Amino acid sequence: MASSSATGADHLAHERSKAKFDVEAMKIVWAGSSHEFRVSDRMAHLVASDPSFRRENRAVLSRKELFTKALRKAAHAWKRINELGLSDEEASWLWFYVDELTFAYIHWGMFVPAIKGSGTEEQQNKWLPLATTMRIIGTYAQTELGHGSNVRGIETTATFDPTTDEFIIHSPTLTSSKWWSGGLGKIATHAVVYARVITHDGQDHGVNGFIVQIRSLDDHLPLPGITVGDIGTKFGSGAFNSVDNGVLRFDHVRIPRNQMLMRVAHVTREGKYVLSNVPRQLLYGTMVYVRKTIVVDSSIALSRAVCIAARYSSVRRQFGSQNREINGIAVETPVIEYKTQQSRLFSLLASAYAFRFIGEWLKSLYTDLTRKLEANDFSTLAEAHACTAGLKSLTTSSAVHGIDECRKLCGGHGYLNSSGLPELYAVFAPACTYEGDNTVLLLQVARFLMKTISQLLHSDQTHKLSGTIAYMVLMDHYLIKYCCSVEKAEDWLKADVILKVFEARAIRMCVACAQNLAKFADPSEGFSELSPDLVEAAIAHCQLIVVSKFIEKLQQKIEGNGVKQQLETLCYIYALHLIHKYSGDFISTGSLNPKQASLANDQLRALYVEVRPNVIALVDAFNYTDHFLGSILGCYDGNVYPKLYDEAWKDPLNDSVVTDGYPEYIKPLINQQLLNARL
Amino acid sequence: MASSSATGADHLAHERSKAKFDVEAMKIVWAGSSHEFRVSDRMAHLVASDPSFRRENRAVLSRKELFTKALRKAAHAWKRINELGLSDEEASWLWFYVDELTFAYIHWGMFVPAIKGSGTEEQQNKWLPLATTMRIIGTYAQTELGHGSNVRGIETTATFDPTTDEFIIHSPTLTSSKWWSGGLGKIATHAVVYARVITHDGQDHGVNGFIVQIRSLDDHLPLPGITVGDIGTKFGSGAFNSVDNGVLRFDHVRIPRNQMLMRVAHVTREGKYVLSNVPRQLLYGTMVYVRKTIVVDSSIALSRAVCIAARYSSVRRQFGSQNREINGIAVETPVIEYKTQQSRLFSLLASAYAFRFIGEWLKSLYTDLTRKLEANDFSTLAEAHACTAGLKSLTTSSAVHGIDECRKLCGGHGYLNSSGLPELYAVFAPACTYEGDNTVLLLQVARFLMKTISQLLHSDQTHKLSGTIAYMVLMDHYLIKYCCSVEKAEDWLKADVILKVFEARAIRMCVACAQNLAKFADPSEGFSELSPDLVEAAIAHCQLIVVSKFIEKLQQKIEGNGVKQQLETLCYIYALHLIHKYSGDFISTGSLNPKQASLANDQLRALYVEVRPNVIALVDAFNYTDHFLGSILGCYDGNVYPKLYDEAWKDPLNDSVVTDGYPEYIKPLINQQLLNARL
Repeated sequence: MASSSATGADHLAHERSKAKFDVEAMKIVWAGSSHEFRVSDRMAHLVASDPSFRRENRAVLSRKELFTKALRKAAHAWKRINELGLSDEEASWLWFYVDELTFAYIHWGMFVPAIKGSGTEEQQNKWLPLATTMRIIGTYAQTELGHGSNVRGIETTATFDPTTDEFIIHSPTLTSSKWWSGGLGKIATHAVVYARVITHDGQDHGVNGFIVQIRSLDDHLPLPGITVGDIGTKFGSGAFNSVDNGVLRFDHVRIPRNQMLMRVAHVTREGKYVLSNVPRQLLYGTMVYVRKTIVVDSSIALSRAVCIAARYSSVRRQFGSQNREINGIAVETPVIEYKTQQSRLFSLLASAYAFRFIGEWLKSLYTDLTRKLEANDFSTLAEAHACTAGLKSLTTSSAVHGIDECRKLCGGHGYLNSSGLPELYAVFAPACTYEGDNTVLLLQVARFLMKTISQLLHSDQTHKLSGTIAYMVLMDHYLIKYCCSVEKAEDWLKADVILKVFEARAIRMCVACAQNLAKFADPSEGFSELSPDLVEAAIAHCQLIVVSKFIEKLQQKIEGNGVKQQLETLCYIYALHLIHKYSGDFISTGSLNPKQASLANDQLRALYVEVRPNVIALVDAFNYTDHFLGSILGCYDGNVYPKLYDEAWKDPLNDSVVTDGYPEYIKPLINQQLLNARL
Repeated sequence: MASSSATGADHLAHERSKAKFDVEAMKIVWAGSSHEFRVSDRMAHLVASDPSFRRENRAVLSRKELFTKALRKAAHAWKRINELGLSDEEASWLWFYVDELTFAYIHWGMFVPAIKGSGTEEQQNKWLPLATTMRIIGTYAQTELGHGSNVRGIETTATFDPTTDEFIIHSPTLTSSKWWSGGLGKIATHAVVYARVITHDGQDHGVNGFIVQIRSLDDHLPLPGITVGDIGTKFGSGAFNSVDNGVLRFDHVRIPRNQMLMRVAHVTREGKYVLSNVPRQLLYGTMVYVRKTIVVDSSIALSRAVCIAARYSSVRRQFGSQNREINGIAVETPVIEYKTQQSRLFSLLASAYAFRFIGEWLKSLYTDLTRKLEANDFSTLAEAHACTAGLKSLTTSSAVHGIDECRKLCGGHGYLNSSGLPELYAVFAPACTYEGDNTVLLLQVARFLMKTISQLLHSDQTHKLSGTIAYMVLMDHYLIKYCCSVEKAEDWLKADVILKVFEARAIRMCVACAQNLAKFADPSEGFSELSPDLVEAAIAHCQLIVVSKFIEKLQQKIEGNGVKQQLETLCYIYALHLIHKYSGDFISTGSLNPKQASLANDQLRALYVEVRPNVIALVDAFNYTDHFLGSILGCYDGNVYPKLYDEAWKDPLNDSVVTDGYPEYIKPLINQQLLNARL
């Protein structure tokens, strides 16, 4: 089903005809299941066919115009969801395809989950019906002007006043101003505000969430004691500028005691701070949930960019062999034929698939973890937490870099907003920072890995290693006996060979770090001093996870003619391009020798040849509509040049033939009369 | 002289007091000479103190507002240049510090140089007086909708009509539409248009430049036969959106024969195409000039970002040691103390200095080349061309990546436009594509290197190797005898050790490519097949050039207490961070062993400790005013938080307390009345 090649010829038909696999079956693999494919496909087309969701050129709008147009789309989306009686699942796909960042994104993605995660059953019963019908609009106010990664450093206070049974929420300093919360600046009526719990005796019990009303439900004015506004514009045109990320200050704002989110702790009527019997670790479950979502987002963001770059690379021609003619006219070579283009583009295509499957796997990890946590089993929490943190870091960094690579692969035209790539970049760039700065997260992973190594070295707890660190029980084997068996390029087409070399590299880098750490008298000084190396070890571990889960995916039953074979090719491309890129790690740890690295590179070249005829079909399998892609370069029918040309004329600068500003600034300039002009 | 710490405390004073070198002397080293320092400093302050050049928040403006405000600044700049009777040198610094992209940028940077480079003396006498007084405004129209890198593929035709002694300029296809030319869309009166010269006999003589008038000098209307407009918005807010990059089509537009730029070829009155005795290679001189300029731009763009990130990293505190208190209050640790922050930031600081010096060296290379070309000596042209192409690629790629790294190093706040980093990124990102796509350029370098190797292997021309490839005469030595002598970390503090290891790696990668190429029967097929490896070899060669010129710089006399020592530290950081990052290359070619690579990393850590107290002074030495930096995070006095807070309230969304769009979209939503609402 051609997404939206409504009229005209399909300029990519010859590419599509080359595919050696069942694209429709691959669409289901990409979607996760037939059910998910059907629901998402239906919602994608519902959005694409609704004129109210049409994309405008956001870059030409002023901030205010951009913002109010986005409000309109959000209201329309919510109206349609109710009119059509869409299920939660359908509604969430509809928001997804509308693809316009607004307060709704934070309301559904952060506010509602925060209440679910940190509210008692009673609190959930009170607030969720209001929130899920959007009778209140919420935001999530954790980060402060001076406090990001270090949540424990938050300064906002919630001081309990037993005389009135209220908390007094207060911003004691400028740096305690809440900052960044999406939807807060101009829209949210409520916020989950993180503040230090101070009891009457002056004791500080650390940070907890509170539900605080920000604006009146009658006239939308900020409530007394509240100063709230937008923090200003952000990277890119469009992008997050349709969101009112906000600043918020409290001047002794009073809220009822029962608006403290009390799942793990509460303050009694008398002012006593009491931990509930619900373990604090449960809150990590929410963190795992949010980060898992970001991993899924990474695969989507990267796959959009790859789809655009792949289609345009098949249309764009530059230079060429002298003997290439069509209808007697010499034509240039499509840039997708160039090996330099292929090595960059195809490895990103493979990454998009790899991240898709790791995201899918994280969903099952989360389900499993939730079940265990509910049964008070915390045995896998640390591992699940480290794993999700690391994968969030790895996939967002790679996706952001990959999107920019795709822009460069589209040459000059990729720099036009109509390519869709600049906005994609600006939208996804902050994913490296929000929900855990990527470097901070990798250090958390490293800390977990060092702890694991230390346990292995100093105790007999090897039987406890499960999940993504299970391979570490083979530490001795990898340190002493292991030797990569590759002798010829085709040896790299064996899953277990690849797995072992990634395991060897990760474990050797970890052990090297552990050995260097041991040289420091003060372990925390050592950790700080060696942190750049620890980050590299953590990356090696995370790359291993992605590779191993891709390989596991291939061991499942996969339907469709040729589908599994394509995925195998992509899996090897993903693994071998990493071996090439990180050859310094692999070789210096002795996990492979230079000759084997060179053979990996040879095999990689051969895999590029194999995947080449399938590339367009492999991006078609993402099933993105032209509406969702929002890119002229990536349009399904490949009819790029007429569309670029037509789009150009829509710019407001083209409204008049003689430009605004000509009489004041240009005419006097070329007439040499500037000296007398008032500018 | 504090750039603009006009009032208030200097929050970075403690950092500045730590510096172990003479900052004022370093400013002169950075500027290139006392003279250049004085002129640029004067112009920087002239611009910073002029209210008409004040930066507005460009991101909140509509495209039209943005565009006309930029026109106003350009007109004001030209007015001031004339009022003050500024010299060319001063004027060029003034444009630089105004830092607003407009038609003027292309007029001075491309149009005027094109006439100088390709026009005859007669043509220069006619056109330059008009252009340099801005009585005409010009642009450079080479790229077409369908043709970028491959200039020979350009489709626009200039057919000579001997009956009228005119050329007929014509756009035969949609893809022949001129595209991207800055200032063309709404402003330029003239353009240097590149078109295929077709003589009356139908013969195609390839591409040449023509001066074509685009708009009337009376009323600014496009001339008959000309279709011209803006191509639409581009990456980022502000950035290149203040430039009217344009589209241009010709419908049989006639121009006088003498508007063909005739320095290297002309068409006679009778219609005969004649090559002049001026060698075509002269045109390469212009290319070297433009690319040299871009290398200089790279160091400026990167240094701006590094200055912002370094200052903010010294102000921003996050997490911290428990025993750190100021006035009895526990404080967090400045993020610049974290080794993960240092390894990223300090290597970029070193790169900024390295690129500054390579840019300076390229200026002398260009001067030398020009002198030789004028004496009909083309012996160094190929080497100079390859070297400039490669360095343009290397420095722009590194700078673009570095700017984004600096944004990430500033955490969430780096994503705010008020950090200055988003616009810096969007402005510099296209440098990887324009004036030669970076990958295409590296392949040109690789081609030159392969030719050199082949000459070395197959002939006795070793005496001809000079300049940046002189080291290749030692090929045999490096292939057979060379062995890195490093035994302990401090051995890496020897310039000749570093130089040799970079030479060994470059030459071994080149020779490996040459050997693999030799296995192909068809050399062009081999070159295509191995192009990703060739690109890597070219990068290795270019990195060697940067390292070697930095080392050469240190052999010059450098004034100022401690200045040379700082530069040495930076030079070693630059070299050793590359050895770490590209350890795969170095180790797999046997240029060093894993132990030596590990020692390089140890030494790098020690160098970070050494440079740490000097970092703020090293970015102060760039001598950037707060106006030029355009960044709250990078402001000289480090008083970041109050400025961020104040800036937020200036956003137009904060003009009203209750937001535009509330009555239509938010009120009915929270009142559950959307179903009846007309959106």
